[in-house]
Amino acid sequence: MEPHGRGAAPGGVLVSAVLPAGGSGERLGGATPKQFCAVQGRPLVSYAVRAMERISWISDIVVVVSPENIETMKTIIEKYGHKRVTVVEGGITRHRSIFNGLKVFAENEFSSHLLQKPEVVIIHDAVRPFVEEDIVSKVVMAAKEHGAAGAIRPLVSTVIASAADGCLDHSLERARYRASEMPQAFLFDIIYEAYQQCTDYDLDYGTECLHLALKYCKTNAKLVEGTADLWKVTYKRDLYAAESIIKDNLSQQVCVITNVKETLAQVGFLLPESLKSQIKVEAISVSLSKNDSCLQNIISGQCYNFVCVNDKRWAIQETQELVDVLEKSNIPVLYPVVLILVHLDIPENNSFSIGMEDLTTIKKFARETKKKNILAYGLLIQYKDPLLLQETVNSAAAVIMALIKDRNPELIGQLLVA
Amino acid sequence: MEPHGRGAAPGGVLVSAVLPAGGSGERLGGATPKQFCAVQGRPLVSYAVRAMERISWISDIVVVVSPENIETMKTIIEKYGHKRVTVVEGGITRHRSIFNGLKVFAENEFSSHLLQKPEVVIIHDAVRPFVEEDIVSKVVMAAKEHGAAGAIRPLVSTVIASAADGCLDHSLERARYRASEMPQAFLFDIIYEAYQQCTDYDLDYGTECLHLALKYCKTNAKLVEGTADLWKVTYKRDLYAAESIIKDNLSQQVCVITNVKETLAQVGFLLPESLKSQIKVEAISVSLSKNDSCLQNIISGQCYNFVCVNDKRWAIQETQELVDVLEKSNIPVLYPVVLILVHLDIPENNSFSIGMEDLTTIKKFARETKKKNILAYGLLIQYKDPLLLQETVNSAAAVIMALIKDRNPELIGQLLVA
Repeated sequence: MEPHGRGAAPGGVLVSAVLPAGGSGERLGGATPKQFCAVQGRPLVSYAVRAMERISWISDIVVVVSPENIETMKTIIEKYGHKRVTVVEGGITRHRSIFNGLKVFAENEFSSHLLQKPEVVIIHDAVRPFVEEDIVSKVVMAAKEHGAAGAIRPLVSTVIASAADGCLDHSLERARYRASEMPQAFLFDIIYEAYQQCTDYDLDYGTECLHLALKYCKTNAKLVEGTADLWKVTYKRDLYAAESIIKDNLSQQVCVITNVKETLAQVGFLLPESLKSQIKVEAISVSLSKNDSCLQNIISGQCYNFVCVNDKRWAIQETQELVDVLEKSNIPVLYPVVLILVHLDIPENNSFSIGMEDLTTIKKFARETKKKNILAYGLLIQYKDPLLLQETVNSAAAVIMALIKDRNPELIGQLLVA
Repeated sequence: MEPHGRGAAPGGVLVSAVLPAGGSGERLGGATPKQFCAVQGRPLVSYAVRAMERISWISDIVVVVSPENIETMKTIIEKYGHKRVTVVEGGITRHRSIFNGLKVFAENEFSSHLLQKPEVVIIHDAVRPFVEEDIVSKVVMAAKEHGAAGAIRPLVSTVIASAADGCLDHSLERARYRASEMPQAFLFDIIYEAYQQCTDYDLDYGTECLHLALKYCKTNAKLVEGTADLWKVTYKRDLYAAESIIKDNLSQQVCVITNVKETLAQVGFLLPESLKSQIKVEAISVSLSKNDSCLQNIISGQCYNFVCVNDKRWAIQETQELVDVLEKSNIPVLYPVVLILVHLDIPENNSFSIGMEDLTTIKKFARETKKKNILAYGLLIQYKDPLLLQETVNSAAAVIMALIKDRNPELIGQLLVA
């Protein structure tokens, strides 16, 4: 069946997901459990939820959190507009939390409304934000065929066993072993049966769901080679890495919007050309004050960076149109959007200056758009000598790339000069 | 013995190190092997060399690289002023490279000059940049006592064995196993003997030095619990993490230098106070034009960030003194230094503007200091209403912190406004 008119699951089965998010994050250091740490302003767990939500054939997403974080989790779901999510109270260990998550598909007394029991259930971690549909689909299909399946990765370090005296007992041959990662998937009846059968010791000290399915239901567990981005955010350095990867992903495309004016034609052409060596560029000539359908199209894509070239001094009103369209699009809800107001300055009598008024205008505008998660910056291109224009435009492109890559909220409203 | 008058090794033994750096970095993606990837402009291998070099009781540091990278490695050593380093040509596998590294302490024909044979030899990876003296010392002492020793870490993922059909065979009980990390250390005679005894199969397919010592020399290998920062840069995300960790380390302290003028007294007091909530601050009042010993003392510390507050419009000449002192100190050789020129602007008649000349002056200055690995930025504090001064200073502090944390080379020479 195809649930709720969404995309078809692999093999046409009903698929739901359980995300244990009850961990305390001891290894990370710091008071906030890692799944609630902010990455580009948004808690990590929201990225994992979004990764599942994006997959149209996943029916329900059950997030299991410790009792003290239920309200936090509900707030996150509301703030970031997550759909198809049910929050469930976790147990004291990972296995007990997953078991609780599974119960909402099977036991009436456990939730206010019983969710439809899926044929296949995905188990994924709240701290693995970068899972792609491709691997989820592979694992689900393998689970349907074999009863259980999970993503694996090569070992990074050699694994050793220590003897009682703290000395090396033996080392494992690295090629024969793999790291067990997430996502995993199971025929629901199998994993639910396994959790019902297993001992308290399993629930308290076990770490591996595949192991439970194997031990209590004699199923096979198919291992699926995963990609490097499945890794689990464990240490502070992993949060840094996640932050950089997300910034990188957001810096893949820029939309350069040039006002349709004669004087801008040259810059409107040169700037996108200069940017093209570093980033995918969508260049459009449009009058922003006319709410153009062309603009709507761009915004419906995956672009998180906008450059508005104008010859009016800080064409705030025109740019406000773009801000309004962006706000309606919901794009800035999940990720901060970078908006760079480029002003081409043609000085008279070769004199040139920036007045207090310009600075105040941009700062005020940026403070307002910041509330909408749009990071606005000003950039002045000095048009003096036509022979130097290419050089100036290259320098502008370098500043634009730096602003896009950094997405620094502390530098909003600043006026930079190329 | 205490070699070359340097610090005493743990247990007073002669200690040297071998750093295999011959890997091809396949897992990272991209053409450059990971040990030569730049982090804050400097190749990763230079960080690992520096980590060893900083430990005064390590006599010789042998870096083993593949034949095509010998010149690159020698250039790195010269550029970053590394001492006590010998570059050796590696073999086709990690074990063969380490063996080559050991030979320069034992076999005359293998190097132009035979290095003094150490009692204990450390083996560390070129792609583990953050090793601290403490763990190196512990591993060396354990090796002296037991014959061999190595750092270990808890496993991040469950380790599983796969069966021939690609299904799960069994999973290991996570608590009984550890990840074998670096550094490791050995009595030289033991590890050298092990390498001489071991088979071609070991040299070609083995991964674990401790295993060789155990197998061929019946020594014990003591396992020493290491810290999280011992991790190995393996994937692109690890390079991102390394970059962020280094930026973080460089953003621990700022030196605020205020010119001794009446008008600056208030800002010279308020700015360091505002910064103190975010970073360790060393505030000094000094006339930069007099080459002060106070300044020399600051610079001999571990400070990579300088804020110069002045009331003259861009006191370039005074700041040049600081640049000269920094250059002489060699501090910018290893890490980019951030230098923020703060100008306190007291507008007359409430009018205020930034002229072309100001912008050009700072840009030119920043372009020059960039060549010395000093990243210069301008920051203007508008002093209008005394009642608003605190707010303006806080905003200046936020911009200063953003510049320090980002160390963005593309934004040098920009004039920011608080």
